[in-house]
Amino acid sequence: MGRAGTVGAVSGTSDLRIGVGVLGCGNVGSALVNLVAEQGPAIAERTGLILDVVKVAVRSASRDRDVTLADGVLTTDAAAVVNDPQVDVVVELIGGIEPARELVAGALKQGKPVVTGNKELLANYGAELYAAADAAGVDLLFEAAVAGGIPLIRALRESLAAEPVRRVMGIVNGTTNFILSQMSESGADYHDALADAQSLGYAERDPTADVEGFDAAAKASIIATVAFGARVLAGSVYREGISAVSPADIAHAHRLGYVVKLLAIAEQVGGAPGKPELAVRVHPAMVPADHPLASVRDSFNAVFVEGEAVGELMLYGRGAGGRPTASAVLGDLIDAAGNRCRGTWTPIGDLAEAVVCPIDDLESEYYINMEVLDRPGVLAAVAGVFGRHGVSIRSMEQEGLGDQARLVFITHEATERAVQATLGELRDLEAVRGVPGLLRVVGR
Amino acid sequence: MGRAGTVGAVSGTSDLRIGVGVLGCGNVGSALVNLVAEQGPAIAERTGLILDVVKVAVRSASRDRDVTLADGVLTTDAAAVVNDPQVDVVVELIGGIEPARELVAGALKQGKPVVTGNKELLANYGAELYAAADAAGVDLLFEAAVAGGIPLIRALRESLAAEPVRRVMGIVNGTTNFILSQMSESGADYHDALADAQSLGYAERDPTADVEGFDAAAKASIIATVAFGARVLAGSVYREGISAVSPADIAHAHRLGYVVKLLAIAEQVGGAPGKPELAVRVHPAMVPADHPLASVRDSFNAVFVEGEAVGELMLYGRGAGGRPTASAVLGDLIDAAGNRCRGTWTPIGDLAEAVVCPIDDLESEYYINMEVLDRPGVLAAVAGVFGRHGVSIRSMEQEGLGDQARLVFITHEATERAVQATLGELRDLEAVRGVPGLLRVVGR
Repeated sequence: MGRAGTVGAVSGTSDLRIGVGVLGCGNVGSALVNLVAEQGPAIAERTGLILDVVKVAVRSASRDRDVTLADGVLTTDAAAVVNDPQVDVVVELIGGIEPARELVAGALKQGKPVVTGNKELLANYGAELYAAADAAGVDLLFEAAVAGGIPLIRALRESLAAEPVRRVMGIVNGTTNFILSQMSESGADYHDALADAQSLGYAERDPTADVEGFDAAAKASIIATVAFGARVLAGSVYREGISAVSPADIAHAHRLGYVVKLLAIAEQVGGAPGKPELAVRVHPAMVPADHPLASVRDSFNAVFVEGEAVGELMLYGRGAGGRPTASAVLGDLIDAAGNRCRGTWTPIGDLAEAVVCPIDDLESEYYINMEVLDRPGVLAAVAGVFGRHGVSIRSMEQEGLGDQARLVFITHEATERAVQATLGELRDLEAVRGVPGLLRVVGR
Repeated sequence: MGRAGTVGAVSGTSDLRIGVGVLGCGNVGSALVNLVAEQGPAIAERTGLILDVVKVAVRSASRDRDVTLADGVLTTDAAAVVNDPQVDVVVELIGGIEPARELVAGALKQGKPVVTGNKELLANYGAELYAAADAAGVDLLFEAAVAGGIPLIRALRESLAAEPVRRVMGIVNGTTNFILSQMSESGADYHDALADAQSLGYAERDPTADVEGFDAAAKASIIATVAFGARVLAGSVYREGISAVSPADIAHAHRLGYVVKLLAIAEQVGGAPGKPELAVRVHPAMVPADHPLASVRDSFNAVFVEGEAVGELMLYGRGAGGRPTASAVLGDLIDAAGNRCRGTWTPIGDLAEAVVCPIDDLESEYYINMEVLDRPGVLAAVAGVFGRHGVSIRSMEQEGLGDQARLVFITHEATERAVQATLGELRDLEAVRGVPGLLRVVGR
């Protein structure tokens, strides 16, 4: 809204110039610098804040960038940016652990608020950085680290501050959502869809971090930490990627009324106040076609929150890209700058010690696609294995494949342990040629 | 996130007890009182704030309520609640203009922050109340006034504080979305779907405020004010309801790849900084079936924001209901209480003078469904009328109805003025029996 040249309780202060130091000037960094230049006058009019990008640290000063900076702003010395007395707020957009961790910690120690988009850093060193920010009494804001332009972190930290969250399920990786959407909509196989994503710039030449779920797992750990106020490291997130999802799985899902999505899921499964037991995982899942997450296509992201009072909530938008992500950074930057002027901050506070429930103990419905020899008695043998492990079958379809047959099962709720034991025994049956597909059914 | 018993910069303050006065104890008020009781300990642990509901004003003290209050809390004297020195923050959930306006203005004048869910009040007297809040240096927060539990206002005011918003389109009335979903999914006509909505408690016995778009228009005015920082009164919002939408319109829309939704739309169409020209309107619209708003079913709400940097963003959730709405009120209450402890507030600031563009000047594609006599020359005559008004036809379908025929047109972009003039002249043609359907196509 139009604001009368004041920032909260600081009306009367005449100089609201805030020196901003930006670390990293890639896609997001250069979009941020341009956005601050474009929106500077409107920001000043609305908030009274004059955001002045005084230093931008880059790895190589000679690279061409789509950004115009005054002489002396660009530097290759990131530590000097953090230490520069003209820099009031530090924006960290380098990515990766080092030197980002040391730079962010250094800024906080000097009492400078930090805005970061670095999921890897927070997923691995979040707890110590949050504690450092609170100890220094300054903001550490990180909206851009999880879902680009989607205001998820603010919603969880502020709007839902008192909401007992039950579960958060997110499509938080645009690359894999694009690939799965392509497979679903054009019938492409995984490798063709990946090649499409690469040629469109949605996937890296080495796509491992995206397609094997590492990116989503880092985001899941941050989401779990914020939604449940508990420390969850990236390494304790169960993770499966999408490279094993086949066109057959997607076609079966479609016929059964589902869509296949790579989901990051964080839910409270037990525990006590101060020590919640959480299940945090990333894996491809079958989502009912009428679930709001099912209609999230292409490279879009969305996060679905189930709370006890608020009910179902979903936030949808661009999870990546220079300008959408820079927009989230800028929202945080205005907050941090305003808080600094007011001498206040949004504390993160002590994080509880989360107990992460092992995937083996989780219950779900399962989709299982297996190839068997097409001869009498096979189905009975297969069904017998399910029964011995207490895995109850909700539906079964059989499809001829020459002298083989494909069996597609949907189970009732069962534990991962029981299902994995079932699969292990099935694979040992002489008539079973393979179990190429296993997907968990979620979202009911 | 878990917070260490501090609220921003007030660590060291030992007493963070905040006296809360609640005006109104209907669905939302009683859900709020219960939520504060349930979540009080968690809120205290996370924020250090002890929310103490010291007074609850009701119209009749004798009515049964699903809420337990200590002796002396319930009162029928709302003004006394506002004036009570024990009351630090006022929550207004009475609804309607008076006495809500006087009570809210009185609280602000005394320097007490106000949280309100009153869309009618803000849509008609928002500008003066926002100015009063800023003059007093206290919060006036109203997340619950627009889309229940959906954190839209916070996203617009904070996350998108520097985002140049182009357009906001919302499904902000659950009753009409339920009715249109029923018509679309079961083929019911408007009256049967309305009766269903009434029997399920989604629609009032007198459904006018919902079905004729008054509720959505009030929300549209608040959305426009917040998204564009400009004063827009409910009365300047163009408004059409859904009572004229027929099963035939919905069936045609479906066949053409659209879904019919009642949309509240606010967009900037021109103007200068400080004096934006806005188009703000509520009407049923044909939305492409693959648009994220198309999959918002039942009584859910969703708001789709298009920004220059952030791209497309959608927030989805429960737009009404006691607990979802109370969850939004509680988020605001924690904010207002924390800000009061810190001696700060979130200013609204001077609102620009909006110029509201008349609907006649807006351009859109149109769906037009008309009944004509089935005889030679009619189509040529009809097409001639379109042509004379410069309305270009994108597609036409003809369908026999005995001795009559139905013509369904989709136009290219045309102004409302040209389309209305076309319809006026068409209605005068002897061969035209009626033009029962007109829908604007939006969302491309």
